[in-house]
Amino acid sequence: MALYVQKYGGTSVGSVERIEAVADRVKRFRDQGHDVVVVVSAMSGETNRLIELAQQISPEPTPREMDTLLATGEQVTIALLSMALNRRECPARSYTGWQIGIRTDSAHTKARIQDIDTDSMQRELAAGRVVVVAGFQGVDDGGNITTLGRGGSDTTGVALAAALKADECQIYTDVDGVYTTDPRVVESARRMDQVTFEEMLEMASLGSKVLQIRAVEFAGKYSVPLRVLSSFKEGPGTLITLEGDDAMEKPVISGIAFNRDESKLSVMGVPDLPGVASRILGPVSAANIEVDMIVQNISEDGSTDFTFTVHRNDFRRTESILKNITDDLGAREVLGDDRIAKVSIVGVGMRSHAGVASRMFDALAAESINIQLISTSEIKISVVIEEKYLELAVRALHSAFGLDAVEETS
Amino acid sequence: MALYVQKYGGTSVGSVERIEAVADRVKRFRDQGHDVVVVVSAMSGETNRLIELAQQISPEPTPREMDTLLATGEQVTIALLSMALNRRECPARSYTGWQIGIRTDSAHTKARIQDIDTDSMQRELAAGRVVVVAGFQGVDDGGNITTLGRGGSDTTGVALAAALKADECQIYTDVDGVYTTDPRVVESARRMDQVTFEEMLEMASLGSKVLQIRAVEFAGKYSVPLRVLSSFKEGPGTLITLEGDDAMEKPVISGIAFNRDESKLSVMGVPDLPGVASRILGPVSAANIEVDMIVQNISEDGSTDFTFTVHRNDFRRTESILKNITDDLGAREVLGDDRIAKVSIVGVGMRSHAGVASRMFDALAAESINIQLISTSEIKISVVIEEKYLELAVRALHSAFGLDAVEETS
Repeated sequence: MALYVQKYGGTSVGSVERIEAVADRVKRFRDQGHDVVVVVSAMSGETNRLIELAQQISPEPTPREMDTLLATGEQVTIALLSMALNRRECPARSYTGWQIGIRTDSAHTKARIQDIDTDSMQRELAAGRVVVVAGFQGVDDGGNITTLGRGGSDTTGVALAAALKADECQIYTDVDGVYTTDPRVVESARRMDQVTFEEMLEMASLGSKVLQIRAVEFAGKYSVPLRVLSSFKEGPGTLITLEGDDAMEKPVISGIAFNRDESKLSVMGVPDLPGVASRILGPVSAANIEVDMIVQNISEDGSTDFTFTVHRNDFRRTESILKNITDDLGAREVLGDDRIAKVSIVGVGMRSHAGVASRMFDALAAESINIQLISTSEIKISVVIEEKYLELAVRALHSAFGLDAVEETS
Repeated sequence: MALYVQKYGGTSVGSVERIEAVADRVKRFRDQGHDVVVVVSAMSGETNRLIELAQQISPEPTPREMDTLLATGEQVTIALLSMALNRRECPARSYTGWQIGIRTDSAHTKARIQDIDTDSMQRELAAGRVVVVAGFQGVDDGGNITTLGRGGSDTTGVALAAALKADECQIYTDVDGVYTTDPRVVESARRMDQVTFEEMLEMASLGSKVLQIRAVEFAGKYSVPLRVLSSFKEGPGTLITLEGDDAMEKPVISGIAFNRDESKLSVMGVPDLPGVASRILGPVSAANIEVDMIVQNISEDGSTDFTFTVHRNDFRRTESILKNITDDLGAREVLGDDRIAKVSIVGVGMRSHAGVASRMFDALAAESINIQLISTSEIKISVVIEEKYLELAVRALHSAFGLDAVEETS
């Protein structure tokens, strides 16, 4: 008798047949006596179809209207899945974001959840019904429909699990767990049985793409046990846990993450004065552009170079913002490069082991890969390299840290 | 400086190009200084696509989920049209049924509007914005999404016009007005410049299909001037007016309406006792089946025959309801026929002219068409005939009452 929040992504509900399969799975859980809240995405292809319609109408569609448009995708899925469950005599009821009371701020197309009202869910569960909730969407205080942005359905799933104090939040996707790195790049990548929130967070933010970073943050913050599973085949998936849960000794490095969608901008010759960093990043963040790495080295002659990375889609916009403020800052010039990639090694075991960084740099040097930027945290080391070396770098590091699968152990 | 509510149906917003054309038209009205509230349907084909998805999932989809599913159709259109208007620098904002505050009862798939909150519309209009509202949908007191059933977008348009006391409610469709009968059946059918609410009501309910009966009722009740126009070509359309507005003498008969989708059921040999009619129709209406004509003749030998018509789609269901109660009623048997059609002559001028009925029956007799049922009201006479004679009957009546176009007069 547990309470599960199960989230099914676009490919898991991509056709009538797939929706039927999800209904069968949910019913199995119900038949075992568990309570189930299901969060679904739009059927795969649907969101792109809607975006194309919008782009035919306007090159810059009104963000508020974009959210109203895109929110229909999940609304279709919740209705169809609820019908499929009801047909199986598994009572179910659908809820859109506004119906279930997912309150967000008003940042259209990238809203953040502020509050979830669990009353109606508790009532439905008590009445023996499966609650089917539209992921990715919410409503602001003005009653406007908002969406949570890319991967927002994962966030919805975790947020509901947290609000309901669910026993587990299960994220069903088209992969059967979290791997030491992308198996499409390194054939010998291994599925991990467990990974810590911290590691997962670093890997998600660095582009492992299995789970959205906000979902993992949320899960860690509210200690929601999170499991990534395949909706296409049976298996234990990967459990994302608090560090203390696992008594076994950790490997030094758990995985290699990478991100192809990065671009790098440098403001050169900035006077080295207090407040300069915020005068550079203020306008960028005001334009709702997310900054990833930030690197500033020691200054020479009272001036310094300030470098940061943003999503490649935001590169041109960021560049023009920076060019507008160059004179005000007294900076020399703005340089940019959108053909870069970021590669990171991640692992909680890194904390207690010296020499991890040098082993990383050695492995890259052995392949003659030049490192453009370095940035470190407690449990990760990231480097920016030329994009064309990405696959080579990932394979070299995967092997250097002993992650290659010898034979299946679990 | 007038306030117009404009309703655009599915074919009028059936593609990106059509939506752009609607945006151009709305902007023209705004540029002339008018306030505009736009009500739109789903893009043509979209509702059928959604229904097909539902039917693949379940032969009897949950009505609540069906409404949640279908309501997405209009939501897509309001977002796209608002984007198109904003792009034309004609500020606009979209509203779903629940956002604009269209409160309905909870009769899913055929809900009725109970109340409309005009605050947000007034605020948007005062701010100089076009308000784009999803037709066909509302929300009940429990926060469930409801739909108004077939043609419900017309009802939304008229209800908004009534609530806002608009100067005119314009229904844009793919025909350029209301005709004396269906031009596909009678080539010489004429567009009417004006028609009264009462006549329109009788014609809509009898299947003229240009406007939904509920919309006309609503418009008549609240004296909302209603105009039917084509969204494809310019023209004055047909204005639907209160009778007193028109000083000109009315023709005896304004139009010939007909309905192919009827079926007829008779409960034979019912004891002629008080309360029998309600014992027959009670269970039918409890099953949400709408009854159209009801005919009961004088009784012989203490028993009578009770006949009524329902939509052909409801024929089997009604038949089985009646068979279940035959014994309880002490009735002899249930007879049914779903190959019938109804033809009606309609006109406010009928009130002051004797002999209209006999002229109608003569015209049908001249074509050897047998009349199965007759029913009359103040301004209409309806007959039920074998379906195969439908076109012949309509042409004969159109000509007998002098409705054939000689040459365009208006």
